Amino acid sequence: MADAQDILSLCKRRGFLYPSYEIYGGVAGMYDYGPLGTALKNNIIEIWRRLYTLGEGFIEIDSETIGPEMVFKASGHVDEFADKMVKCKACEEPYRADHIVSDLHPNAGALSEREIEELIRKNNVVCPACGGELSNVEEFNLMFKTTIGPGSGRVGYMRPETAQGIFVNFPNLYRYNREKLPLGVIQVGRGYRNEISPRQGMIRLREFNMMECELFVDPEDKTWPRFGDVAGDAIRLLTNDGQEMEVTVGDAVEKGVICNQVLAYFMWFTQEFLKAVGIDGEKLRFRQHEKDEMAHYAMDCWDAECLLSYGWTEIVGIADRGCWDLSRHATFSGVEMSSFKRFDEPQEIERDKIKPQYDKLGPMYKGKAGKIGKAMEEADPENVVDGSITVEVDGERFTISSDCFDVVKVKEKVSGVRRVPHVIEPSHGLDRIIYSVLEHSYTQREDQTVLRLPSAVAPIKVGVFPLMARDGLDDLAAEIDQELRFGGIETYYDESGSIGRRYARMDEIGTPWCITVDYRTKEDGTVTLRERDSTSQVRVRFHDVLKVVQTALCGADLSEFVINE
Amino acid sequence: MADAQDILSLCKRRGFLYPSYEIYGGVAGMYDYGPLGTALKNNIIEIWRRLYTLGEGFIEIDSETIGPEMVFKASGHVDEFADKMVKCKACEEPYRADHIVSDLHPNAGALSEREIEELIRKNNVVCPACGGELSNVEEFNLMFKTTIGPGSGRVGYMRPETAQGIFVNFPNLYRYNREKLPLGVIQVGRGYRNEISPRQGMIRLREFNMMECELFVDPEDKTWPRFGDVAGDAIRLLTNDGQEMEVTVGDAVEKGVICNQVLAYFMWFTQEFLKAVGIDGEKLRFRQHEKDEMAHYAMDCWDAECLLSYGWTEIVGIADRGCWDLSRHATFSGVEMSSFKRFDEPQEIERDKIKPQYDKLGPMYKGKAGKIGKAMEEADPENVVDGSITVEVDGERFTISSDCFDVVKVKEKVSGVRRVPHVIEPSHGLDRIIYSVLEHSYTQREDQTVLRLPSAVAPIKVGVFPLMARDGLDDLAAEIDQELRFGGIETYYDESGSIGRRYARMDEIGTPWCITVDYRTKEDGTVTLRERDSTSQVRVRFHDVLKVVQTALCGADLSEFVINE
Repeated sequence: MADAQDILSLCKRRGFLYPSYEIYGGVAGMYDYGPLGTALKNNIIEIWRRLYTLGEGFIEIDSETIGPEMVFKASGHVDEFADKMVKCKACEEPYRADHIVSDLHPNAGALSEREIEELIRKNNVVCPACGGELSNVEEFNLMFKTTIGPGSGRVGYMRPETAQGIFVNFPNLYRYNREKLPLGVIQVGRGYRNEISPRQGMIRLREFNMMECELFVDPEDKTWPRFGDVAGDAIRLLTNDGQEMEVTVGDAVEKGVICNQVLAYFMWFTQEFLKAVGIDGEKLRFRQHEKDEMAHYAMDCWDAECLLSYGWTEIVGIADRGCWDLSRHATFSGVEMSSFKRFDEPQEIERDKIKPQYDKLGPMYKGKAGKIGKAMEEADPENVVDGSITVEVDGERFTISSDCFDVVKVKEKVSGVRRVPHVIEPSHGLDRIIYSVLEHSYTQREDQTVLRLPSAVAPIKVGVFPLMARDGLDDLAAEIDQELRFGGIETYYDESGSIGRRYARMDEIGTPWCITVDYRTKEDGTVTLRERDSTSQVRVRFHDVLKVVQTALCGADLSEFVINE
Repeated sequence: MADAQDILSLCKRRGFLYPSYEIYGGVAGMYDYGPLGTALKNNIIEIWRRLYTLGEGFIEIDSETIGPEMVFKASGHVDEFADKMVKCKACEEPYRADHIVSDLHPNAGALSEREIEELIRKNNVVCPACGGELSNVEEFNLMFKTTIGPGSGRVGYMRPETAQGIFVNFPNLYRYNREKLPLGVIQVGRGYRNEISPRQGMIRLREFNMMECELFVDPEDKTWPRFGDVAGDAIRLLTNDGQEMEVTVGDAVEKGVICNQVLAYFMWFTQEFLKAVGIDGEKLRFRQHEKDEMAHYAMDCWDAECLLSYGWTEIVGIADRGCWDLSRHATFSGVEMSSFKRFDEPQEIERDKIKPQYDKLGPMYKGKAGKIGKAMEEADPENVVDGSITVEVDGERFTISSDCFDVVKVKEKVSGVRRVPHVIEPSHGLDRIIYSVLEHSYTQREDQTVLRLPSAVAPIKVGVFPLMARDGLDDLAAEIDQELRFGGIETYYDESGSIGRRYARMDEIGTPWCITVDYRTKEDGTVTLRERDSTSQVRVRFHDVLKVVQTALCGADLSEFVINE
């Protein structure tokens, strides 16, 4: 099995990934995508986007990465998005407190500040770098902070997730969807997390790429129309009471292991997406979060975990965020964040209503009594406090005691109800997915690396080679290269080194097909087509090349194109 | 002609753009892309990307948006990327100093702090908001500042352009390109500019989207292989000596109006790209920067400008950045940032060399004399200062006066030379391009808005309607809708309101084609295909729909599919 060092060294050498700002010594937790990594990333994004938009009819938005403080107060990130930190009193090196005691406790992430300090003291834990004494534990908020506008300006943060950009746009998006649920919204973009001390390659980044989906559903209806189509498919689960099982999606919902159809459907959907882009299904499971591990916003959460050289690693989180986010933003912004569920028929409901006693209001409030009474009629009886109701009229507040009104039952015809939608969120760590795809496709063949990437995600689809860079073979190969590129297919033209060396270069970066123009091409107009995984070679016609490659990339049968020797 | 208010109101109403964080009152200079805007943006990016990668063989990278301070010291942004600002002494409102005096001077952007202060004083300029007195002018750096890591950490900035991520990766990318020039590198992503007081809709944003290309070329060879193919094409220029002309690209270079082929080729390339995505060629020109207007890094620069309701507006800048960036990063990082030009044949060159007088060094430096002499031989004679050369041996520095060495001419065979490449940069303001495309495609037809977007960029390609949402027409329409979506084509299914109303909705968002299933469909298996700009309708077979739409989207002739009445 490949380890992270093999992968990262291949990535650097061949142009998938470069440590950011390397000429300045780099910055921990930051990587740049090189030419091959960017192409791989774009391909994975495009597959994901199409599955959600064309496949499920969801919409995509692109919101800002900097947000004002209020947004992240509402979302809870200002208060909750923090890690516990200790610093070395001698060399000032900072450490994540739970990492520094991870060998001393089976679930260090769940410990309190006090408990960690006690563990450090009892076990004489010192600074791993210099042996110095460690400080007390403090909370460090993980958002990058900045200022919007000049001077002291306005506090802003780099978003820790793309999700909030969707939530704050809910009224706009709900209107776009013509006020219907379910409403599925996706977003691809950067997220930021100012890690205390990132040290795990691509797994723990300060600036990362996310693909998030926020699916708004009726809180009383978490069924899913296409659930029946997938109910028979298998999924591997590890529940938070420690059971590991392979079950059908349908059984998992029926037995209450997964709490509703929508969540289960998108777990299945995530599994199929991950397999399509090159994750090994045998090294994939869904682990339910422990109660004390759940994010502050989640009602239930399952992580898609991948078996890597790092161990089982979260690459997608699929959470039921309930009404947390929309309710919080409604409270903090004062804007209604609800959907309207229209009944098939208007329904008669009974509700409490405040009925003012105008004969008492009149003498007390004179000319204002009418307006005050009207405001009381519109007020919610739930806002009666200590027997009094407070209303505002023309900017003035009046508190009216209960001897001036009654609370009565009234019957009303209503056409529907307003509800705060619940949110099901499949949230993808794109960098981790890319890393996992690389690790799972990394194989060795006679000391040569072969990346067995699916064609759909391979950065280069076809290597194009003239056997020799002369005698017109190079011109013919260049012609094929251009035809393929103009046909929308990424190629790599290479005329240097032995043909074996050139195949090996393509195998190492996962190129599924190679085409070689040789002297026979000039005689009979055929070229060699070579497949990466089998290394098998067939001859096809020079003039068929574009069609052959298109067919090959679809995974369809090529026999009609093969020329017998 | 449409004005910005028409466009922005359409954008908000129909889901192209939403003011960011609107529920919290918004943040000036920030917009989110809604569902249609995101699709439009993705389409434009994809066309641009393919023109550069598949068309020109350039590579794409994706680098981090946060960078450490040193990077932007080297790039010059810490010192130079600033606007002049005044504040109201009463209400503290900040203003761009050049904007506040723009009516008082024809070129306010080029004025010094002193000159602006004088203009304000002489003309009694006061705060436009409250009439208060204005402060002196101060410089405000436009980068968003943050801290990387905990505590006082490391100063970081949000990148003001994507370009620096390419420059700092030059050694990696040059190696990826197998040490050859030209090397073309593109990047798409966010840029940040903490505007003092942004007030121009999509034109002046604090967080924006860029598409940048950095093309590294041999400084002594700014020809371009495909230049001949385009030399006859026309381009509209406004030079910095005030001449306005329509010339061929070839003439412009020959007459020295545009200084080299590479720059001219990519101006032409930019023009073709802009026209392909929907910019009106009649409202497009290239304006050369005034000498005092050029960015700190540019040797020459032409702006692609679009005629908008705002006036002529820069949407792409095409600069010759010379060797500024690579040289600066080489100096600041100590890493070699050059390319190696191999001669066809090794050449004999004569150069100066330091020749130590070992008989004098021996007695003075004893055991170290050998190493010191060796270091002197390797030193560059250009570093001789005041007759002495300083060398470092085993961490110790020695300054040797000229009586201990001679500078002699030597002949050497060299296989090539190292040079710092020059950079040609087409830098695209994606948001401005999107805005311009919307303004240029905005038309009115009988009080209805019709967005005449090219098919390739339209967010929705096909509206699919059942004439009535019953009698099975809805099922047939849904079947077409799904077939198109699974075929990779964005659709909008709509069964509500009159058919005319549904066409109007699609016209307003630029959908080029609509398909209607009606009662005749059940009789003869045909549907109506309606074109946006002509509103002409033809009937085609239900079973041909996918092929018909694919053909229509390519702009090809549809007559073979049309069923005669």
